[in-house]
Amino acid sequence: MARPVHGGTNIAELRSLGLRPEDVLDFSASINPLGAPHGVNQAMNCVDLTAYPDTECTALRDALAEQIGVSTDKILVGNGSTELIHLTARAFLGSGDRAVIFAPTFGEFKAACDMQAAQVVSIVAAEDDGFRWNIADATKLIAEQSPSLVFLCNPNNPTGHYLTEEDVRQIARALPKDSLLLLDEAYLPFVDAPWNSLPLLDLGNVALMRSMTKDYALTALRLGYMLAPPGVVERIRAQQHSWSVNSPAQSAGIAALADPEHVEDGRKAVEAAKRYLIGELDALGIRDTPSAANFVLVKVGDARALRQTLLKRHHIGVRDCASFGLPKHIRIGIRTIDDCRRLVAALREILEHGNE
Amino acid sequence: MARPVHGGTNIAELRSLGLRPEDVLDFSASINPLGAPHGVNQAMNCVDLTAYPDTECTALRDALAEQIGVSTDKILVGNGSTELIHLTARAFLGSGDRAVIFAPTFGEFKAACDMQAAQVVSIVAAEDDGFRWNIADATKLIAEQSPSLVFLCNPNNPTGHYLTEEDVRQIARALPKDSLLLLDEAYLPFVDAPWNSLPLLDLGNVALMRSMTKDYALTALRLGYMLAPPGVVERIRAQQHSWSVNSPAQSAGIAALADPEHVEDGRKAVEAAKRYLIGELDALGIRDTPSAANFVLVKVGDARALRQTLLKRHHIGVRDCASFGLPKHIRIGIRTIDDCRRLVAALREILEHGNE
Repeated sequence: MARPVHGGTNIAELRSLGLRPEDVLDFSASINPLGAPHGVNQAMNCVDLTAYPDTECTALRDALAEQIGVSTDKILVGNGSTELIHLTARAFLGSGDRAVIFAPTFGEFKAACDMQAAQVVSIVAAEDDGFRWNIADATKLIAEQSPSLVFLCNPNNPTGHYLTEEDVRQIARALPKDSLLLLDEAYLPFVDAPWNSLPLLDLGNVALMRSMTKDYALTALRLGYMLAPPGVVERIRAQQHSWSVNSPAQSAGIAALADPEHVEDGRKAVEAAKRYLIGELDALGIRDTPSAANFVLVKVGDARALRQTLLKRHHIGVRDCASFGLPKHIRIGIRTIDDCRRLVAALREILEHGNE
Repeated sequence: MARPVHGGTNIAELRSLGLRPEDVLDFSASINPLGAPHGVNQAMNCVDLTAYPDTECTALRDALAEQIGVSTDKILVGNGSTELIHLTARAFLGSGDRAVIFAPTFGEFKAACDMQAAQVVSIVAAEDDGFRWNIADATKLIAEQSPSLVFLCNPNNPTGHYLTEEDVRQIARALPKDSLLLLDEAYLPFVDAPWNSLPLLDLGNVALMRSMTKDYALTALRLGYMLAPPGVVERIRAQQHSWSVNSPAQSAGIAALADPEHVEDGRKAVEAAKRYLIGELDALGIRDTPSAANFVLVKVGDARALRQTLLKRHHIGVRDCASFGLPKHIRIGIRTIDDCRRLVAALREILEHGNE
């Protein structure tokens, strides 16, 4: 029951290289390149440190309800999406129960299932199919396996593949009664032409999970939320310990929501930088998987070696995808065009001179 | 599997009374009356919001290790003690396993056991015994019951009773092999003449849990840590999801540790204010239980009614102890002498004019 390996930069590794986190240009995370909205720091400064956090996250849920247009009883706030994933696993999976994971994907899904001693069935998208799942086969398998919980990330991490509404509805319809489809939409705000997933809540067995650590870049604070039917919210919330979302995170979330244009500006910045980066990667002969999200999966051969060279020689971090089962791929989170230029120059240098 | 009722002030109740949290003088929590150390806000401002928290809490564990004089592999940092309680329950309790709780005490212990569907055996200190447990009886019961986990809060919340080292050693010795005694020392920094509990770690089956939300008043941030043998730390840590302690909490913790005198100053302030408060309560004919901690348990008759009147009429919060099984008691967290004067005046007014 070890924790999943996330494969990004980690402090111990940086220390061993004599680097501090601030020395590294980090493409291993996929965060709004514009950073956090103005107003977040000020909101954190206004927190009364001596008062307990509101364990109901009342004001943040009110703000989310108003912005999204759902009632507050359909909203559960978590200490990052990661907490919500584990709470959901605890609420829906008993020992030996089946869980289906659309893979390759975020490693925390499987980690959460493993902690429950659940039986995990992976539906793996093949590289030869452009990392696209066959939805007809998937729904058939789900109907056969009768899982208690299904994890689906849309757009998917690390492939960037974005399923259509009809695909997701077919998957939801294949689920047995009383089970749940957890749709992780952490990267949805960076999709250029998203479809509206809110009507999925009417199906009764779908929960939408969103992260404020990506679109609002509140990465250091951990802040995620779930939209689900009230009964599902209650069932998952019963697993959550008191005060799990601290006051700075709640206050920062409220301040961030007051600046929704920041997300749209971030999406546009990503769109432009992604276009630039993909063009340059093509020119270097590096193959990418078409991505609807704010990262690209690229095939590089020995991903581990390339990641190490980028870090040691250029102080640039990328995500080695070995922990996704893709040891030949790296994932590049889209940063500003200027940052992407540095990455491209580093990749060009390595292509010319080789790994160490 | 509902969450425990904590019986302090809650936002919904305040809203219904037309009050904001900042309007209430809150004695329901038991926090350093001097607030958080200087430097905490600045440390939080220096956090890079776009970077993931260090999931190992490396720098904070280093600082704790140096200050306490234990190695870092004996330290686990949590999102408040509350997270650590639940992680410990998940690591040590399977369905049907036995847990022993020294009661009356913090409600989160039982909540954590209930979530694991464990069988809870309470060892209840009687009011007639001054809320002191009979340790010989307790160790006999533990030896008979063979629990996987024992919860003991020292000094105890809400009674303030402080066990001797020999008492705690006897309890630890009564435990079966591979089980754990979790000693919650959240209020230890406010004890005037504490004994050194660190040698208990050598027993191999004791974990010491400490909170930085009380002594350093980082209440809004949630920050607790556990000292335990490395194998116990690993076993509990395996239950913790990634990034559960966010960066502002880690940075604030490091900044707070740089100011250890703040805790000593807080303890002295509590000592003086407690002496004042107890004298005044005596004069009002209100009976308190002798407390080694920074709160006092007092018998008031109908605690619920008194709490409501204090809140509505005087905008003062105290802890109604019904959720501890003590509906005739309130718990008063020690604040500054000036704040205590306001509480005493309010109690005097209510004694003269009655509850609503």
